[in-house]
Amino acid sequence: MTIVQEIQAANEAYAHSWTQGQLPLPPARKVAIVTCMDARIIPAHTFGLKEGDAHVIRNAGGRTPEALRSLVISEQLLGTDTIIVAQHTDCGMLTFENKDIHAIIHKNLAGADATHIDFLPFKNLEQNVRDDVRFLRESPLIPKHIPIHGYVIDVSSGKLIAVDSE
Amino acid sequence: MTIVQEIQAANEAYAHSWTQGQLPLPPARKVAIVTCMDARIIPAHTFGLKEGDAHVIRNAGGRTPEALRSLVISEQLLGTDTIIVAQHTDCGMLTFENKDIHAIIHKNLAGADATHIDFLPFKNLEQNVRDDVRFLRESPLIPKHIPIHGYVIDVSSGKLIAVDSE
Repeated sequence: MTIVQEIQAANEAYAHSWTQGQLPLPPARKVAIVTCMDARIIPAHTFGLKEGDAHVIRNAGGRTPEALRSLVISEQLLGTDTIIVAQHTDCGMLTFENKDIHAIIHKNLAGADATHIDFLPFKNLEQNVRDDVRFLRESPLIPKHIPIHGYVIDVSSGKLIAVDSE
Repeated sequence: MTIVQEIQAANEAYAHSWTQGQLPLPPARKVAIVTCMDARIIPAHTFGLKEGDAHVIRNAGGRTPEALRSLVISEQLLGTDTIIVAQHTDCGMLTFENKDIHAIIHKNLAGADATHIDFLPFKNLEQNVRDDVRFLRESPLIPKHIPIHGYVIDVSSGKLIAVDSE
């Protein structure tokens, strides 16, 4: 089977066991989580979530500047009032600089130019969590009453480690 | 308990049951999935994923233009070679226009101006899946050999419905 066939078969089994009907659109536990796309993170497991509980925003690195659009929608339209930012050990974003990926793209993609894109790599994990939490705390688009908690996920143990928690 | 205390307690139980050590950084099943932040979607369930399997990129709407940075990192640095785009029924992005959220922000956030931000709402779910798949197929930053599959997730049943699958 191809990966797509495997996914379709897994989905048929999941839908077959579905019992909850259609849950409400706003997250029941009023929390929005920003984390990395990393394959080793299953947010439902890391944070103890079930269907309907929480917004989960994921991108390469779990970077909050890119998550801002989604967070504003989450808070202003769908009622979330707590933000968790969780980046992780052994992140790919610690392994390259913009000039490296710009060169790889130029070489692999027929001379394509991506030098206008900041791929948002970083050099220090804990400092980056603090910087990304501060970005949200200082944003005029995030209400000041919303607590923002910064964590590192240790992908060798699954553990959440508080880095910058209000 | 606060939501943060509940999450920390759930994480302690998860880490306590952790047995796999540290898995490799590149996704074992070489697939990258773009989907919405919606609380009712648990991608590990929808797509049948376990820790280490797949990159999962999530934002409000599951919009691919915002996911492009992450997808390029996924493919060029971490070896994924299939993309799945899955948006869903009853999506909040179908319920507003940019002018609505710009006005809400101005009212709720002390006159803050977000009129420079496109919040990427859309009016037709299936057409938007097709448009977001086409955006990736036409991007010079996505290799032409990478198949891109577009789906709708029915949040009343958990089912994946193919919309635009190569």
